[in-house]
Amino acid sequence: MNPQECEAAFYEALEKADLEAMMGVWADDEEIICVHPGGPRLVGHAAVREAWRLVFQAGTRLTVQVGQVVAMQSMMMTTHCVHEFIALKGEARPVAPVVATNVYVRSGNGWKMLLHHSSPSPKPEPPVTQPAGATHPKVLH
Amino acid sequence: MNPQECEAAFYEALEKADLEAMMGVWADDEEIICVHPGGPRLVGHAAVREAWRLVFQAGTRLTVQVGQVVAMQSMMMTTHCVHEFIALKGEARPVAPVVATNVYVRSGNGWKMLLHHSSPSPKPEPPVTQPAGATHPKVLH
Repeated sequence: MNPQECEAAFYEALEKADLEAMMGVWADDEEIICVHPGGPRLVGHAAVREAWRLVFQAGTRLTVQVGQVVAMQSMMMTTHCVHEFIALKGEARPVAPVVATNVYVRSGNGWKMLLHHSSPSPKPEPPVTQPAGATHPKVLH
Repeated sequence: MNPQECEAAFYEALEKADLEAMMGVWADDEEIICVHPGGPRLVGHAAVREAWRLVFQAGTRLTVQVGQVVAMQSMMMTTHCVHEFIALKGEARPVAPVVATNVYVRSGNGWKMLLHHSSPSPKPEPPVTQPAGATHPKVLH
């Protein structure tokens, strides 16, 4: 999996509320980090898993449209900053725009998520350099 | 400058409300990203600079204590996730805890900041693996 595929798998697991698929996208690293919108920083697999379990257990099914990706790629680590447009399943209008920073690392199993930091965004700026949804990672080296 | 020094320079510029020093820590990259607590995603030097100018112009002098650093380092890119305890200058009690993700890239001029994503944190978790303020970057490769 490259970073784009890992990111797609993350949002697919979120939409499907699939806890095992969700945890499968994360790096096998002691200090993975997840910050849900408005939430505290969670560190480590146990804390990250438990928070997703509670989110999925609540039963609210969401759709997430991801756009305005800014990607910075290096050999072993890649950072994406995206806007998430999250809506209740079946409803067209997003509940809230969220800005998310996603950091991926290259592992023996391909690229995995190391950090997900999301926070409510008052008003995403209009896309400047690329259309929503397009990903043209800037490769540093 | 290594990533730790770049981070120290960032927070020093913030405390001193020094706009030129602040912009000097950022990478010479078109798509630098800054998210202030509760704010929108800002992309590019002009937008990032203007936001810091407004913050500093407001005249509120802050002290920032940074702790509970989780660091993930690779050859060309490093991610730190920290808690910021921000207080008004002269007051001991922090106004608000903030969780911040800081991404650095190695450039010809040493390590520079590529992304700063901060958001209010309801309650930082107690430090698990290290005392507040300690930095023991995990080197991936």
